[in-house]
Amino acid sequence: MFEISELTRPIVQAPMGGGPSTPELAVAVSEAGGLGFLAAGYKRAEQVSLEIEAVRRGTERHFGVNVFVPSPKPADRAAVSRYMRELAGEAARLGVELGPARFEDDGWEAKLELVCEERPPLVSFTFGCPSAETVRRLHDAGVSVWVTVTRVSEAVSAAEVGADALVVQGTEAGGHRGGFVDDEQAAGIGLLALLSLVRRSVSIPLIATGGIADGAAVAAVLCAGAAAAQIGTALMLAPEAGTTPAQRALLREAIPTGLTRAFTGRLARGMVNRFQAEHSAAAPSAYPEIHHVTSPLRAQARQRGDADGFNLWAGQAHELARERPAAEIIRTLAADARETLAATSRRFAG
Amino acid sequence: MFEISELTRPIVQAPMGGGPSTPELAVAVSEAGGLGFLAAGYKRAEQVSLEIEAVRRGTERHFGVNVFVPSPKPADRAAVSRYMRELAGEAARLGVELGPARFEDDGWEAKLELVCEERPPLVSFTFGCPSAETVRRLHDAGVSVWVTVTRVSEAVSAAEVGADALVVQGTEAGGHRGGFVDDEQAAGIGLLALLSLVRRSVSIPLIATGGIADGAAVAAVLCAGAAAAQIGTALMLAPEAGTTPAQRALLREAIPTGLTRAFTGRLARGMVNRFQAEHSAAAPSAYPEIHHVTSPLRAQARQRGDADGFNLWAGQAHELARERPAAEIIRTLAADARETLAATSRRFAG
Repeated sequence: MFEISELTRPIVQAPMGGGPSTPELAVAVSEAGGLGFLAAGYKRAEQVSLEIEAVRRGTERHFGVNVFVPSPKPADRAAVSRYMRELAGEAARLGVELGPARFEDDGWEAKLELVCEERPPLVSFTFGCPSAETVRRLHDAGVSVWVTVTRVSEAVSAAEVGADALVVQGTEAGGHRGGFVDDEQAAGIGLLALLSLVRRSVSIPLIATGGIADGAAVAAVLCAGAAAAQIGTALMLAPEAGTTPAQRALLREAIPTGLTRAFTGRLARGMVNRFQAEHSAAAPSAYPEIHHVTSPLRAQARQRGDADGFNLWAGQAHELARERPAAEIIRTLAADARETLAATSRRFAG
Repeated sequence: MFEISELTRPIVQAPMGGGPSTPELAVAVSEAGGLGFLAAGYKRAEQVSLEIEAVRRGTERHFGVNVFVPSPKPADRAAVSRYMRELAGEAARLGVELGPARFEDDGWEAKLELVCEERPPLVSFTFGCPSAETVRRLHDAGVSVWVTVTRVSEAVSAAEVGADALVVQGTEAGGHRGGFVDDEQAAGIGLLALLSLVRRSVSIPLIATGGIADGAAVAAVLCAGAAAAQIGTALMLAPEAGTTPAQRALLREAIPTGLTRAFTGRLARGMVNRFQAEHSAAAPSAYPEIHHVTSPLRAQARQRGDADGFNLWAGQAHELARERPAAEIIRTLAADARETLAATSRRFAG
């Protein structure tokens, strides 16, 4: 089974659902000695199957597939309805209808079956802890299992069900908070403090993620106990990424990011635009219902190139993203990290 | 003039106002090769003068004095009054009166005069940017100047007025957010991302602070471009610290921290207790007014040893604080950081 120590370069691509993650990006990262990732979230199992095929055509190296763990129960209907009334004006302005407030499980069973059949080297989970049985099922299929955690108690639970490694997500990270529950408390823990705490609590390898955008930051998380750094936003300007043109144009601007439930009903970090600023205060914790409700709004805004109308997921260091081929980004980060480690070690050796 | 590169060990004590910082702690840290710090905030200039004397009696090494930059204008009176009404029950229960909602400048001019006369090697500023004239005045007196920053624009401003180095404070930090304005946005930026961004924007030395509690984290921030790590909570269990017994008893517990204005009217990170949980939502941005309003409540709760009634400032890695003499903490952190750098460098050299 895949082990993180097999990577040539200690850099993992973050699975970025909703567009940026593509098979081309995963192939480029894996071919460069990092670990490419597919984002199965929001997609039908058949599409994920096609993407796995595409990655396998492009590389013989390791790669991962990220799967969303379903929410345990539907959200409060009254809260969803209230927020839908708030969004009515947005829909009218764009000339679309709000989507239905659907509660569903993102094709959980179909995706589990798919990965057990297709056997990618690695499956990572977001939004919850797989059961020990699910982990066993994947292990039996020869698939390594990672779990995304945002607090110490989650790390302990994930280690207990048999996870092979943990993706430790700091508050700096772009996109959804990947922990087990949708709450503010864990959403605010900085990567470095979280790594320090988790490192004491579990003995499996840690993959650090959140706002890592240069080689010095990669070196930093390796020192802090991570076996590898996971980068997302730092790859969003690569030509292989499926980032929207409207976001590409803004990504290097000094625009603040914030945590919001406005787009999906679950906390996620995005560059603050009009929609996020206007609706974050009212948005309830209601995933995936709100994701479906806002889907037509976001699609329409995206089509119009209106960067004020859809989610601009990005980590806190998004200004440092570079418009370079993914392979070059991976190689540069790894080389810079190595050089930083050597130089810093020399500097403080005395 | 003092330069950060003169330190034997790249570790700076955080000035911890309201009790934990003592001359004894500063002496112990400086004698161990780190940089001890006095917290001038809340104190009268005469008391600060006595503390500087005490440090000088204890050590011939460098040390710093932290000074609060005054708020530019009084807070909204109506907001303060509303919050005072909310706190009336707390006062009644404790049998004390709320303090007066005083707006004042923490003895700004007297403290500037004091440090220009006493000439400690270093003065750091919190809550704002000193003017270029103030920086010049300190430089003329042979005093180095550091400024606390929480976002890139503050770093640029501080460099422009002539600061010799910047204390870069990540969201992980315990106690008050030290930036120029009291706002949520900068309060949420993780240390590692902030270091990456600030490092590109200014060329003066950076001192990293926020949730740094072990040698691995010290090594991490040195890699991320810091010249030294500033630690606060990690020293709070040292016998030299003036930490209250009630907080000492809780500091290593897995209690979440949160940002709150409940105690002082300015965002600060504390371990979430009853008072913080009940009043954070209503507390306005009104510093120092709310500081004075809650002062009798906090004093009374502290006297009773009621850890649910006063501020338990602590960083996100507070569980890792160790009950050891300050000198041992400094030496251990530095030694562990060096070892981490060497080991990580070896591990990823291939």
